[in-house]
Amino acid sequence: MLVVMKAQATPEQIEAVCAHITQLGLRPHPLPGAQRTAIGITGNRGEVDRGNLESLPGVAEVIRVSKAYKLASRDVKEEDTVIRFAGTDATIGGEELAIVGGPCSIENRDQAFAIATELAAAGAQFFRGGAYKPRTSPYAFQGLGLEALKLMAEIREKFGMRIITEALDKESLELVAEWADVIQIGARNMQNFSLLRMAGRLSKPVLIKRGLSATMEEFLMAAEYVMSEGNYQVILCERGVRTFSDHARNTLDLSIVPALKRVSHLPIVIDPSHGTGRRDSVLPMARAAVACGADGVMVEVHNQPEIALSDGPQSIYPEQFARMMNEIEQIAPVVGRRLPRGIHVAATAR
Amino acid sequence: MLVVMKAQATPEQIEAVCAHITQLGLRPHPLPGAQRTAIGITGNRGEVDRGNLESLPGVAEVIRVSKAYKLASRDVKEEDTVIRFAGTDATIGGEELAIVGGPCSIENRDQAFAIATELAAAGAQFFRGGAYKPRTSPYAFQGLGLEALKLMAEIREKFGMRIITEALDKESLELVAEWADVIQIGARNMQNFSLLRMAGRLSKPVLIKRGLSATMEEFLMAAEYVMSEGNYQVILCERGVRTFSDHARNTLDLSIVPALKRVSHLPIVIDPSHGTGRRDSVLPMARAAVACGADGVMVEVHNQPEIALSDGPQSIYPEQFARMMNEIEQIAPVVGRRLPRGIHVAATAR
Amino acid sequence: MLVVMKAQATPEQIEAVCAHITQLGLRPHPLPGAQRTAIGITGNRGEVDRGNLESLPGVAEVIRVSKAYKLASRDVKEEDTVIRFAGTDATIGGEELAIVGGPCSIENRDQAFAIATELAAAGAQFFRGGAYKPRTSPYAFQGLGLEALKLMAEIREKFGMRIITEALDKESLELVAEWADVIQIGARNMQNFSLLRMAGRLSKPVLIKRGLSATMEEFLMAAEYVMSEGNYQVILCERGVRTFSDHARNTLDLSIVPALKRVSHLPIVIDPSHGTGRRDSVLPMARAAVACGADGVMVEVHNQPEIALSDGPQSIYPEQFARMMNEIEQIAPVVGRRLPRGIHVAATAR
Amino acid sequence: MLVVMKAQATPEQIEAVCAHITQLGLRPHPLPGAQRTAIGITGNRGEVDRGNLESLPGVAEVIRVSKAYKLASRDVKEEDTVIRFAGTDATIGGEELAIVGGPCSIENRDQAFAIATELAAAGAQFFRGGAYKPRTSPYAFQGLGLEALKLMAEIREKFGMRIITEALDKESLELVAEWADVIQIGARNMQNFSLLRMAGRLSKPVLIKRGLSATMEEFLMAAEYVMSEGNYQVILCERGVRTFSDHARNTLDLSIVPALKRVSHLPIVIDPSHGTGRRDSVLPMARAAVACGADGVMVEVHNQPEIALSDGPQSIYPEQFARMMNEIEQIAPVVGRRLPRGIHVAATAR
Repeated sequence: MLVVMKAQATPEQIEAVCAHITQLGLRPHPLPGAQRTAIGITGNRGEVDRGNLESLPGVAEVIRVSKAYKLASRDVKEEDTVIRFAGTDATIGGEELAIVGGPCSIENRDQAFAIATELAAAGAQFFRGGAYKPRTSPYAFQGLGLEALKLMAEIREKFGMRIITEALDKESLELVAEWADVIQIGARNMQNFSLLRMAGRLSKPVLIKRGLSATMEEFLMAAEYVMSEGNYQVILCERGVRTFSDHARNTLDLSIVPALKRVSHLPIVIDPSHGTGRRDSVLPMARAAVACGADGVMVEVHNQPEIALSDGPQSIYPEQFARMMNEIEQIAPVVGRRLPRGIHVAATAR
Repeated sequence: MLVVMKAQATPEQIEAVCAHITQLGLRPHPLPGAQRTAIGITGNRGEVDRGNLESLPGVAEVIRVSKAYKLASRDVKEEDTVIRFAGTDATIGGEELAIVGGPCSIENRDQAFAIATELAAAGAQFFRGGAYKPRTSPYAFQGLGLEALKLMAEIREKFGMRIITEALDKESLELVAEWADVIQIGARNMQNFSLLRMAGRLSKPVLIKRGLSATMEEFLMAAEYVMSEGNYQVILCERGVRTFSDHARNTLDLSIVPALKRVSHLPIVIDPSHGTGRRDSVLPMARAAVACGADGVMVEVHNQPEIALSDGPQSIYPEQFARMMNEIEQIAPVVGRRLPRGIHVAATAR
Repeated sequence: MLVVMKAQATPEQIEAVCAHITQLGLRPHPLPGAQRTAIGITGNRGEVDRGNLESLPGVAEVIRVSKAYKLASRDVKEEDTVIRFAGTDATIGGEELAIVGGPCSIENRDQAFAIATELAAAGAQFFRGGAYKPRTSPYAFQGLGLEALKLMAEIREKFGMRIITEALDKESLELVAEWADVIQIGARNMQNFSLLRMAGRLSKPVLIKRGLSATMEEFLMAAEYVMSEGNYQVILCERGVRTFSDHARNTLDLSIVPALKRVSHLPIVIDPSHGTGRRDSVLPMARAAVACGADGVMVEVHNQPEIALSDGPQSIYPEQFARMMNEIEQIAPVVGRRLPRGIHVAATAR
Repeated sequence: MLVVMKAQATPEQIEAVCAHITQLGLRPHPLPGAQRTAIGITGNRGEVDRGNLESLPGVAEVIRVSKAYKLASRDVKEEDTVIRFAGTDATIGGEELAIVGGPCSIENRDQAFAIATELAAAGAQFFRGGAYKPRTSPYAFQGLGLEALKLMAEIREKFGMRIITEALDKESLELVAEWADVIQIGARNMQNFSLLRMAGRLSKPVLIKRGLSATMEEFLMAAEYVMSEGNYQVILCERGVRTFSDHARNTLDLSIVPALKRVSHLPIVIDPSHGTGRRDSVLPMARAAVACGADGVMVEVHNQPEIALSDGPQSIYPEQFARMMNEIEQIAPVVGRRLPRGIHVAATAR
């Protein structure tokens, strides 16, 4: 159920409607738009009596939302969601493309800073690095944990890049929310509903990676889990799905980008590193991601991929990252986008 | 790495080898077999010096295990694992087939007891029922939680059936371990490594459902996560994988049964209810499961599936369950199995 | 559109209705049933005026068939189709299970007769062997062609087994129809509509293998192509589909058996050899096939699989075939089936 | 096996080597390159004695090709294959992108010419239209056949566009080869080896669509079938594969583009119309195709898609085609490509 407020509705009227909804034992989700505010209602398994709501002051109309996802739907919020980061002009979902780079795992201070230096120089506004790693084998490297989080906080201090890193469970979630800027929920946890709920109660943006065999609706329902708890800052991330096709590690499903844009207001970024598993394919697919309308790309970069503790074969070199920035910059205007202001792509990369 | 003890090795010698392994900063996993004990070693990312180990008293040989999964591998433990339940003669993995039945969700006392009465009469030794439900939608029925666990504990008291139910996170895991007999890890959590680790530190058997797009190796690696923490009582459960095929809800991959039997000693049971999503297909696929060598079947049964809160269309009626028991009883001897002793299949079903 | 004739309708009345349909520029397909004859109508893209038809003598009712497949649908023909072979009591689709065995390719007289001798002794009523092979590589062995067809005709003479072999194109189709008893259309040609049409104009039964990524509806539409040309003797064959799952060569989709039985009257046989690609998995899946209600199994058998020119690793030994017959014989009664009369399973195999 | 000739080898020497290969009972495939000619050898199942070959005049070296595909491999021909069309400067595989447009089916003269007029104006150099349609249902519109071929020949006369259309079998193949410029082999016939062989004996370029569940190797082996018969003018076409993903009709596997470029010299074009099945997704994916390095795009265009006899929902409007040309033109330089010389994108489309 969705309450659409009149354009001239006052903050007090909005608050009164929310209070009324709460009184009904339901949960109001006020979503301000450019023209007017809409208030999503969740918590009802059956039907809510719309009569009462429609007669409240400032209410324009009450609409039934028929899709399984409500708060993630464009029916509820028509304008694209833009995630902003206090103290910076970095955004995800706006006119500027969000470019995220960094190593699969934070391995040590030297590695992390060496890569961060190169990425900052090439214009990345987001730095990613694994602190808690979901590894298929219990015997594989599991990440440096808190130590990695602290190193990345230092990187933010020094270079100004915002930090994105994965949380695996309650413990790591609390630490990630404390030290990083965006909480990543990995593909293998896309339907870990308990973790999604906890992330929904935090105030940091949440980037959700698509599960290896998730349909678009399931993907949006994962976002809905986070949003239903009151955290509307959700970023979707396509990272390849699992099919019979064996020329790449996964099958990067780029056509989900226009499909998502039709039904949801949430931003979508593409991870061509996991999506292909091959260094040589990362740049072509990053270009394709921007060309088909994605809001950003997230790539693995390593200064010495041949000795990386994880995902070496799919990590690109810093100079490839710089080249990618240059290529993306040229494609962006075709889709009405641009790289963030003040980006200085290294002259040598051109 | 695997230390194979001599047939005549004493308990003290086994203990001494374990102590030596611990001293090396590694973890010993003593796995008694019919002939002799093997001790799996985990925790080493590189190579362990086998020289020292081979010279310890009672050691027959030290073997490198090349598969990604170690403790789950038949290389480490040749004999089939049989899970036993104190105070009963119920087993999973032995000559007797394990038959598990019950509703998708525990909805209320009447429903739970009505179904349990029928299942017990038909000879089921395991009762399943959802207390904590992983639902795609945050707005769907999420289970009765502790109340359901308590109802199932009563069912165990009254009918003697052992209880299998799913845990979703740390909180529910602790409660399930306290109230139930087998902890189920659902398909969507098959790579929730944090949850698997926690389950590995408990002393109740763990039933792991195959992820919707998990390879056999990933499935065994999930078991390995549990086992690497010291809990070797793991049951695998095939419940259908996700493919393009649309005549059933999932594609039940029965051929994983002989494939698993070749490489692992762990028991495998089949869930034809989720595997097909259609009531009419449950009995045919349950028969097929037994015929191809599975260690048991797990089916959803409901006395009033048309009003079930979840998974109604795939729940069979109690009388179908009785017929299934009868059919399975006839097929079992062809694969050297039988239904548990003392099963009284209702005469009318024959 | 379907014209259902009255139970007491005379042959002349049936003929008159068919003539009327032909006059309308459409094609009548008279399908005799146990109670009464139904006449399928194809050829109309739009709607046929049912008024005229309903008033013809002997007509009970005229029904619209809403499924995409018409002649293959149980709506049009309620009873199971049983394929019969003149001069033998072999059937496919009846109470007796159809057991088909033979090598992937006919390699030479010695190999063919050695295998045939064993299969006949174990009770197979159908012999399969590749004469024309659809090979992924143009440089691989392509089959002996006509020479193989002639060898198989000799095998039929000597052992009485009926011959099933694949046709690839117009030329091989004509030869297969001349020399063999069942025309096989391979998985890769399941949507070679031109070939299906040609097979529909012949009078030999046609066995269609499911395409590697064919849905059930597409599978039935392939049958419909053959039937729409007037050849109603169609056998379906599940041989595994292509998925991400990598423990077997293909994913054998056994649950299509009950799904097909619900909607179609055509017989379905299972090929566990291609379905798994592993010798060790063939017997378990053959047992499962019978247990879930398939009308037969088709397996690759080779006397020297290690030197087979194709598909060696999935070919079972003759003694395994004998064991399979024994196991199937025991499971068959559970599903109301039996092995053909007069089968003499070798005493040693029991 | 591959014979690499010296850069200065004479035509007579090349001919002598080919004659020698023929004499060995094998087939020589001379493939001229920018620097020197290579001669592929096919037909040998075992090993060829390289000694003799290496001593022939003009031979630089003899190399074993270990991949399953030989003539399609970049090992055999390093430079990209460029398909040329006599009497025009249209190419496929060169610096200029190949843009193909047209209706799914040729329905009548008015429809065909109306669409062709718009496409020619927007700068398409290739016109596609179905004359023989592979339809899932035998009761669906099967195409106008020869009449459609003749209409397209007129379109070539009038507008200069080269014609691409599908052949289904021997009969249609001969007609397509006679009337059209490029023979299309559809996805459902990608492993119709008999048809591929016949196409390999013709002198027109062959465009092969990827099968719905074909691996990259199988795709290249289909090309190899055509090439092994002596027709080296093969174009590959990705049109989406079949997966669980349901937001689009198929899953467009764009990452096959860089993967193919690594191993093969054949051109690859993308069909985003079948690849997505949704009009709104065609332009985004066409842009992505060019951005990731494809050699061209093939799209379905219809002037009245709402009344199209087939594939209406995925056909774009002519004005969308013009916009696509404009967008592609801007992206092309980023990947070192351009639209064909003399293209005049309509001013209104900008």
